[in-house]
Parts: sequence; C-alpha cells; structure tokens
Amino acid sequence: MIGGFGAALLLATLSAEAQLKPEEQIEYRQAGYSFMAWNMGKIKAQVVDGSVPYNKAQVVAAANAIAAIANSGMGSLYGPGTATDQMGDKTRLKPEFFKNLDEANKLARNFTGAVDKLTSEAASGDQARIKTALGEVGKTCKACHDQFRTK
Amino acid sequence: MIGGFGAALLLATLSAEAQLKPEEQIEYRQAGYSFMAWNMGKIKAQVVDGSVPYNKAQVVAAANAIAAIANSGMGSLYGPGTATDQMGDKTRLKPEFFKNLDEANKLARNFTGAVDKLTSEAASGDQARIKTALGEVGKTCKACHDQFRTK
Ligand code: HEC
Ligand code: HEC
Repeated sequence: MIGGFGAALLLATLSAEAQLKPEEQIEYRQAGYSFMAWNMGKIKAQVVDGSVPYNKAQVVAAANAIAAIANSGMGSLYGPGTATDQMGDKTRLKPEFFKNLDEANKLARNFTGAVDKLTSEAASGDQARIKTALGEVGKTCKACHDQFRTK
Repeated sequence: MIGGFGAALLLATLSAEAQLKPEEQIEYRQAGYSFMAWNMGKIKAQVVDGSVPYNKAQVVAAANAIAAIANSGMGSLYGPGTATDQMGDKTRLKPEFFKNLDEANKLARNFTGAVDKLTSEAASGDQARIKTALGEVGKTCKACHDQFRTK
C-alpha cells in the first residue's frame, strides 16, 4: 500500500494545487469502490453464480482492475473533514475512522493482501480457487464497511 | 481491449442476472472514468506541474490503475438504452455513439494504446517521457469526449 491512511493529513501540508477538496476526495474514493464492486460482480457471475460463462481473460482483467485500484494509494482520499460529521450525507465515512487509523490501516492491509491472492488465483485459471479467493476479498470489504461505513 | 463496444449488445442475449440495468452501467462507467481522472491528476501534479514531488512508485501505481481500468472491458457498460435520448441527464453519452461503434472502437484502441505507453514510460522513471506519454493519453480522452460526450 502506498502511504496508507494518514497520508492525506501529511499531504495537507503541501501546496494547494496538490490538495483535493473534501468533495473531490469523496467522489474519487466512491468511484474507486464502485468500480471495484463492478469487477467483483463480474468475477462472481462467472465463478460463483455461473450466470455468465467462465472466461479467463475477463476474470484476470477484473482482478487486475481491483488490484490496481486497491494499490493506487486511496488512503490519500481520506483527508481530514471528509466524514459524515462535516460532509453530511455526501459521504458514508464514519467520523470514528479518524480516531482509529491503526485499525483502518490493518483492515486495508488485509484487503490488499486478499486482493493480491485473488490476482494470482485468477492467473491460475482454477475456478474453485478463484471462488475461494473472491470470498476472502469480500470478507475484507465487509470488515471495513462494518466498522467505518454508515448503513 | 476485451470485447470492445458492441459487446454489451451481445451480452444482452445472456441471462438476466448477468445483465446490468442502464443506471448501473452508467454509474460504473462514470466511476471508471472518474477514478482514471484522479490518477491522471496525480501524475500531472508530479511530472507536469511539479506541485507534488516526483515519486516513482506513486506514478507507476497511478499508471497501473489507469491501465487496468482501461483494459477491464468497459465496452460492456455501453449497452443499448444508456445514452441521453433514453436516460436524460443521468448520462452524458450522446445517442450518436450507437450509430458509430466502429469509430468508438477506434478511439478506444487509440486510448488503450496510449495508456500502455504511459505504463511503460512510468516504469522507466524518466519524467520527461512520462510527461509526453501523459499528454498523449490526455489527447485520446479528449478525442472521445469531443465526439461522444455531451458538454
Ligand atoms: C479500508 C476500508 C474499505 C475497504 C477495504 C473497502 N471499502 Fe467499500 N467503502 C468504504 C468506505 C469508508 C465507504 C464510504 C465512502 C464514502 O461514502 O465516502 C465505502 C463505499 C463503498 C461503496 C459505495 C460507493 C459509492 O458509490 O458511494 C461500494 C459499492 C463499496 N464500498 C464496495 C467495496 C468493495 C467491493 C470492496 C472490496 C473489493 C470495498 N468496498 C473495500 C471502506 C472500504
Ligand atoms: C472511448 C471513449 C472515452 C474515452 C477513451 C475516455 N472517455 Fe471519459 N467519458 C466518456 C463518456 C461517453 C463519458 C460520459 C459517461 C456517462 O455519463 O455515462 C465520459 C465521462 C468522463 C468523466 C465524468 C465521469 C462522471 O463522474 O460523470 C470524466 C472525469 C472522464 N470521462 C475522464 C476521462 C479520462 C481522464 C480519460 C482518459 C484517461 C477518459 N475519460 C477517456 C468517453 C470516454
């Protein structure tokens, strides 16, 4: 992971051009999660539900998209003032997040670890193993939502 | 590119679970573009504006995110009924798009080609070359917007 959570608090000391507004940080992190969710859904349709025929290249591409987003330094999109206490319903980030950065970083590391595994299993082409790895990634998404995302 | 534009029209013949609603297709493609724009901006800040110090790992990660999104088969998010004529201001996709799939595919190929170049230049660590490659990618974003995105 590049930077981790807390990186944005350091970034805030840099020049203004470099610092995104809270609204922008929220928009971009929501975009990242949304695009990952689409790719999770594509893999699920092929290796869990079977509603779409398995296509190795598509599953590899989906896993790569999830991994590249997960490893793109999204931590810098969690700057001060971007939780519900200041941004209302523009965001679902709980204010507790900023009091628990160590926990958030731990969950993020679990997440990127599970995603790396999904990428290598996708490359193996073994659908049963991809299914297991997908389930493990899903647990790490959920762990973070349970703690830091409002209902 | 996996599938290209027109893939969604084929996909529509598959089972219902596999087919996303127009609203979902629009949300996911907007998310993909938005997340790419964030990553373009990070590279720009470091190698064009100099408003953030150059960090090779961050630029490589940003280029990888753009490339993985560009190569994730976004063409399947351009299903029938997802342009402004049917979806109003939920989308900025011009209806002309569906009458010009060959042109759209050509622009998409130019785009993924420029993105692949950006990825390899990012890995080289040569800022001048990264700057040039970034400009080329930007031209391919703009070419598509000029033709197929409303103002
Ligand atoms: C480290 C924490 C964390 C991890 C890991 C995580 N999420 Fe989230 N997710 C959040 C938070 C916080 C929000 C709310 C963001 C906001 O509204 O500002 C969110 C929002 C979302 C949203 C709603 C986006 C929108 O458009 O508003 C989706 C969908 C989502 N996550 C899916 C996922 C998926 C799928 C994964 C795993 C592949 C994942 N998330 C991993 C914390 C996480
Ligand atoms: C092949 C066509 C195409 C290419 C290539 C393309 N775009 Fe777009 N872009 C679109 C279309 C069409 C929309 C409108 C999507 C919609 O509203 O449904 C759009 C929308 C967007 C949006 C608004 C997203 C939102 O949240 O509504 C941004 C930002 C954007 N593009 C940036 C980029 C960047 C940056 C690149 C290159 C790295 C790029 N685009 C490449 C066609 C393209």
